[in-house]
Amino acid sequence: MRSLVTGGAGFLGSNLVDRLLQRGDDVIAYDNLSTGRRRFLELASASPRFALIEGDILDATTLAAAMSGVDTVFHFAANADVRHGTEHPRRDLDQNTIGTFTVLDAMRTAGVKRIIFASTGSVYGEATVVPTPEDAPFPVQTSLYAASKLAAEGLIAAYAEGFGIQGLVFRFVSILGERYSHGHVFDFYKSLRADPHALRVLGNGHQRKSYLYVQDCLDAIFVAADAMAPTKKFDVFNLGTDQSCEVNDSIGWMTGELGIRPALNYTGGERGWIGDNPLIYLDSQKIRGLGWTPRLSIRDGVVATLNYLIANPWLLEDRP
Amino acid sequence: MRSLVTGGAGFLGSNLVDRLLQRGDDVIAYDNLSTGRRRFLELASASPRFALIEGDILDATTLAAAMSGVDTVFHFAANADVRHGTEHPRRDLDQNTIGTFTVLDAMRTAGVKRIIFASTGSVYGEATVVPTPEDAPFPVQTSLYAASKLAAEGLIAAYAEGFGIQGLVFRFVSILGERYSHGHVFDFYKSLRADPHALRVLGNGHQRKSYLYVQDCLDAIFVAADAMAPTKKFDVFNLGTDQSCEVNDSIGWMTGELGIRPALNYTGGERGWIGDNPLIYLDSQKIRGLGWTPRLSIRDGVVATLNYLIANPWLLEDRP
Repeated sequence: MRSLVTGGAGFLGSNLVDRLLQRGDDVIAYDNLSTGRRRFLELASASPRFALIEGDILDATTLAAAMSGVDTVFHFAANADVRHGTEHPRRDLDQNTIGTFTVLDAMRTAGVKRIIFASTGSVYGEATVVPTPEDAPFPVQTSLYAASKLAAEGLIAAYAEGFGIQGLVFRFVSILGERYSHGHVFDFYKSLRADPHALRVLGNGHQRKSYLYVQDCLDAIFVAADAMAPTKKFDVFNLGTDQSCEVNDSIGWMTGELGIRPALNYTGGERGWIGDNPLIYLDSQKIRGLGWTPRLSIRDGVVATLNYLIANPWLLEDRP
Repeated sequence: MRSLVTGGAGFLGSNLVDRLLQRGDDVIAYDNLSTGRRRFLELASASPRFALIEGDILDATTLAAAMSGVDTVFHFAANADVRHGTEHPRRDLDQNTIGTFTVLDAMRTAGVKRIIFASTGSVYGEATVVPTPEDAPFPVQTSLYAASKLAAEGLIAAYAEGFGIQGLVFRFVSILGERYSHGHVFDFYKSLRADPHALRVLGNGHQRKSYLYVQDCLDAIFVAADAMAPTKKFDVFNLGTDQSCEVNDSIGWMTGELGIRPALNYTGGERGWIGDNPLIYLDSQKIRGLGWTPRLSIRDGVVATLNYLIANPWLLEDRP
């Protein structure tokens, strides 16, 4: 099997690359290295079955050429900066929606027949059913990021129907673990590293979130991909744990692990930023029905992530 | 009130322009005249409160300039060629998704605070609940057209949340009536006019559809828009009748009205084209709860449309 991973130099993408190589695939990481890092591909680069192609997903020509002979595209490239959508209204549209269109159309041109897509639990907006199942009531979008991912899901489903491309979509909670380089554990640790005595917290700290450990996430993707019947056009799975936590819990686990007791300065309000969902808590019965179960609790995931960051200070330093 | 109607020279848009002028608004029709027709604006052009601006919705500069002083944008411009999405995969993305983004961002720039959007009942895909309510289970898209409209809805909701723009979305069944210039009644009449003895019918003729008369549709839009609380960010309404019909019923009403009995040649299969939904039948309880009720039955709408086309042969002749 030959797999191409867009965003293959990113947090999730590079972990996927390693796992695909372990499974015996030939693997191409396709990444523009805008947020991805070559250092995440050091392990992969030792394999003769691996290649990195530096390219942008909006570059249809390079993309289609990279897809020659590919069986499955794992489309993981995205603008993942959920918080700052309103400062750059077009970025999510370009990177996530038009980017996904370009990937799909390159697949059509190159004859690639399967796409596995990293979507987000935030497509449920302010869910009226919690834990939220895949067939929750038709949602109202609350962020440009989620709207762009929903649009990408719709394009994948339409390509599946119209062009015989098999589409498999995963709606994630936030993912934690090795190579995590973006998000609250990163931000909090970076802040605490600079000043262990005080921590600024967006919102009131009671925002509930659900997290999943990266290897558990990848396990689930392989379970669903391997179980999908070749005749099935499209499917979608939530990926999350059966737990949720408050931002405050996460801070407690981190400061406990670090052995510090900073003053917590809350900015106030129920939301961290405009479009922040107070709770993303997904029903994962569908993927569990295939035999998958996560190995790490949210707490274990937070602590593993923190310890990875402690061991890899370059990650906190190399970009401002 | 000053209103701008994108697609204002189209079938639905030009009827809306006339109604807005009747209500006393100042009205700008914004249209690139690619499928819109100046002739549809003959009545409007007699009003000193009307202006046509020839421009494309992808032209952000012209669009933002046109929006100066506008209170409400009715965003009705779209690629409405549902059937041929797979022949031009990028067209729906450009015209419907990126077009809607461009409209929203021009509104943000120009300070326009309200958008009323023409979406489609086809966003429900192959609905699992029929009649289909607004909060139906999270759908799977089956056409590039519907995917592009779903994406547009998501962008509107995200702009409503992020930028304080009020968004009101209508998911239509197919609309019929005066100035109808696209779709099955048009195609069938054009074919029967050329050859009243035989009619080619896509699929098996048993595809169920639901239709709404254009003035009933516009009534509903005004009812919902007038009832919407200024503090409400976003809302969505289905618009349809409580009836559905088969393609065969519609053919029967038309041939009965024309007094002919053509041979019907079916292409076969349950769907007219790839991505065609066998049934789009919307639950319209939500809009009915505001006191709206349609005046014309589907049959009356089909016959009214046919008689309009008979009275306006130029419409069948001016473009191949």
